[in-house]
Amino acid sequence: MPTAGAQGMTKRRMEAFSDGVIAVIITILVLELKVPHGESVEALAPVLPVFLCYVLSFIYVGIYWNNHHHMLHAMRRVTGPVLWANLHLLFWLSLVPFTTAWMGENHFAAAPSALYGAVLLLAAIAYWILQQLIIASEGPDSLLGKAIGRRDWKGKLSPVLYAIAIPLAFWSPLLAQSIYVLVALTWLVPDRRIEKAVETGNA
Amino acid sequence: MPTAGAQGMTKRRMEAFSDGVIAVIITILVLELKVPHGESVEALAPVLPVFLCYVLSFIYVGIYWNNHHHMLHAMRRVTGPVLWANLHLLFWLSLVPFTTAWMGENHFAAAPSALYGAVLLLAAIAYWILQQLIIASEGPDSLLGKAIGRRDWKGKLSPVLYAIAIPLAFWSPLLAQSIYVLVALTWLVPDRRIEKAVETGNA
Amino acid sequence: MPTAGAQGMTKRRMEAFSDGVIAVIITILVLELKVPHGESVEALAPVLPVFLCYVLSFIYVGIYWNNHHHMLHAMRRVTGPVLWANLHLLFWLSLVPFTTAWMGENHFAAAPSALYGAVLLLAAIAYWILQQLIIASEGPDSLLGKAIGRRDWKGKLSPVLYAIAIPLAFWSPLLAQSIYVLVALTWLVPDRRIEKAVETGNA
Amino acid sequence: MPTAGAQGMTKRRMEAFSDGVIAVIITILVLELKVPHGESVEALAPVLPVFLCYVLSFIYVGIYWNNHHHMLHAMRRVTGPVLWANLHLLFWLSLVPFTTAWMGENHFAAAPSALYGAVLLLAAIAYWILQQLIIASEGPDSLLGKAIGRRDWKGKLSPVLYAIAIPLAFWSPLLAQSIYVLVALTWLVPDRRIEKAVETGNA
Repeated sequence: MPTAGAQGMTKRRMEAFSDGVIAVIITILVLELKVPHGESVEALAPVLPVFLCYVLSFIYVGIYWNNHHHMLHAMRRVTGPVLWANLHLLFWLSLVPFTTAWMGENHFAAAPSALYGAVLLLAAIAYWILQQLIIASEGPDSLLGKAIGRRDWKGKLSPVLYAIAIPLAFWSPLLAQSIYVLVALTWLVPDRRIEKAVETGNA
Repeated sequence: MPTAGAQGMTKRRMEAFSDGVIAVIITILVLELKVPHGESVEALAPVLPVFLCYVLSFIYVGIYWNNHHHMLHAMRRVTGPVLWANLHLLFWLSLVPFTTAWMGENHFAAAPSALYGAVLLLAAIAYWILQQLIIASEGPDSLLGKAIGRRDWKGKLSPVLYAIAIPLAFWSPLLAQSIYVLVALTWLVPDRRIEKAVETGNA
Repeated sequence: MPTAGAQGMTKRRMEAFSDGVIAVIITILVLELKVPHGESVEALAPVLPVFLCYVLSFIYVGIYWNNHHHMLHAMRRVTGPVLWANLHLLFWLSLVPFTTAWMGENHFAAAPSALYGAVLLLAAIAYWILQQLIIASEGPDSLLGKAIGRRDWKGKLSPVLYAIAIPLAFWSPLLAQSIYVLVALTWLVPDRRIEKAVETGNA
Repeated sequence: MPTAGAQGMTKRRMEAFSDGVIAVIITILVLELKVPHGESVEALAPVLPVFLCYVLSFIYVGIYWNNHHHMLHAMRRVTGPVLWANLHLLFWLSLVPFTTAWMGENHFAAAPSALYGAVLLLAAIAYWILQQLIIASEGPDSLLGKAIGRRDWKGKLSPVLYAIAIPLAFWSPLLAQSIYVLVALTWLVPDRRIEKAVETGNA
């Protein structure tokens, strides 16, 4: 079917572009690790908080790439709104290097910790919008619609937790950061639902 | 047909290279958001104008990727001039991070606002040249030729508006910026013409 | 077989993402070569040690890309753990520009030379984990399992040599660096085992 | 034939990696255009020489991408030495942003102009090595062997001209730069030989 080929090409380029942007984001993160001026082991000390933030953000961007990869894998059709919802997600992800550096350089202060969560919240919302648009385009009875539809507890819980963490950061930054780490851990478990549906459903 | 395969490969690599360059441009944009020195919410204030410019430029680069994607989708043949016209377009797009930073850091002053428009104008002209070369190579009766040929009002209006905004920036930068925002909004609507032609025409 | 197509797509995107990240890492390395302030040939002198580090790191990242490329070429199935082990490898590789710059700017001092080795060691371990997970998923009788299984002396020797070089760096940085150069040289010889197995085995 | 598939995949990944690296190089070039501090048109004056160097280097990297693209298009087999010769070429190209910035920031002084040419010379030699290895692997009677073999005057003349320009830069930088511009112009004409051979020969 010719249309399938055309859609395949469109999907391939949307994947390639997303891969490119996410690959650059994940690598640009490390540019915020400024080379220390001294040559002793102690000179590394001020880099440590930035490094810890780097690890967390690397994991977050990795989670997004992983989930994005699985979701697009199950997608059949690319529409105009899907392309823009995808760019919208990439926009918020592209701000992660900025919030990571601000939080790291200020030793996990209140405002930077809140902003870090705000960008995570906005990225989560953007991901949710993208997911809804894809489900709407594929239909609720589609492979993806069924896989996601039942219980998307992680996708629903994460934004709630970020929304709690943001005001909390002004009271206890450490508590907010603990929430960010916790949410990352729940996502590190791969999304078996889609994976399974794709494997059994078809390809 | 063997030639089709060869052209397919050439087109794929031209797409991949363009995707790579545009993905790096859109992500490098964010490097201009310098991490503020303070740790308070107020420390973010000087970043705000740069951020607003970042949003506008992200949308513009996104629009170019989107339109580029649709135009190449409908393209059948890659010629030498098309490859160079594509590099020419990427050249002007690659200057967007520079003009974005200059405009943002100078709080939308006159000269930076004019230069921002000048690069947009040159990118629009480069896109138009690329489009004409593709139509010339595909033929006016081709899928793309028919889709574009009828009424390309957005493609013709945008450079005119940029050309008006550039001198206007020296009189009222705000007016020039309003024009840039307005043009972006008209382009955010996806190019139904090509999309429809591809869907109905063939693939 | 539909699953083969699905797996092929997943593998393609994992390759594309890895290529993107490694391409950005290898190019970001050069950003650490700060442009000298003077315009004389002598002004280049302080850049020289950074340049030498750059050459070594470029070769190391090139070796990883080459081996990664060969290993994934022989891989048939992509699993969740493999995706994460791959991201884990990319994480350590992404730190190479940082350790390269620190070692180069401090003229090969003790601590930077040790850290350079530590990141190489962690990348080597990450590569080994990825390899083991792929073999576990493909089966010991698979193409890759057989090719690697017999004698992986380079993969086993390299981390041992890095582990020796790290403490050694505090005694004689030059000795540690010589080990890094030596290990790179052993890897520059392409991995004939996999290459041969793929060529004869099948494709 | 299974081997063809395997080689196709290897070639695709080599192309994708090269595209990624060249896309990052061409975009990183623009990072050397430092945002001017003033907001007047005059503030752009010191950026102008860097901008001119940027244009020249963008064209050079574009030429390399274009020729690389055509050469790999005609290539059938990927060997280990070819992969490393390709990385060797990418290494010298990755230094172009550095030499561009040094030449631009010192207003085309002698030593920077000579170094700019030296990197161009080394990249040209690396390209020639890659070409010879591909011809050796494909055979002199292959599509590529025949296309290149006859008269590769541009490939032979360019390194000679760079080699003349390098010492000349210390006597008259302007003369050296004129040679760089001249060589770029000869290459802007697309390589009809390979293009034609591919089109008529096969695909």
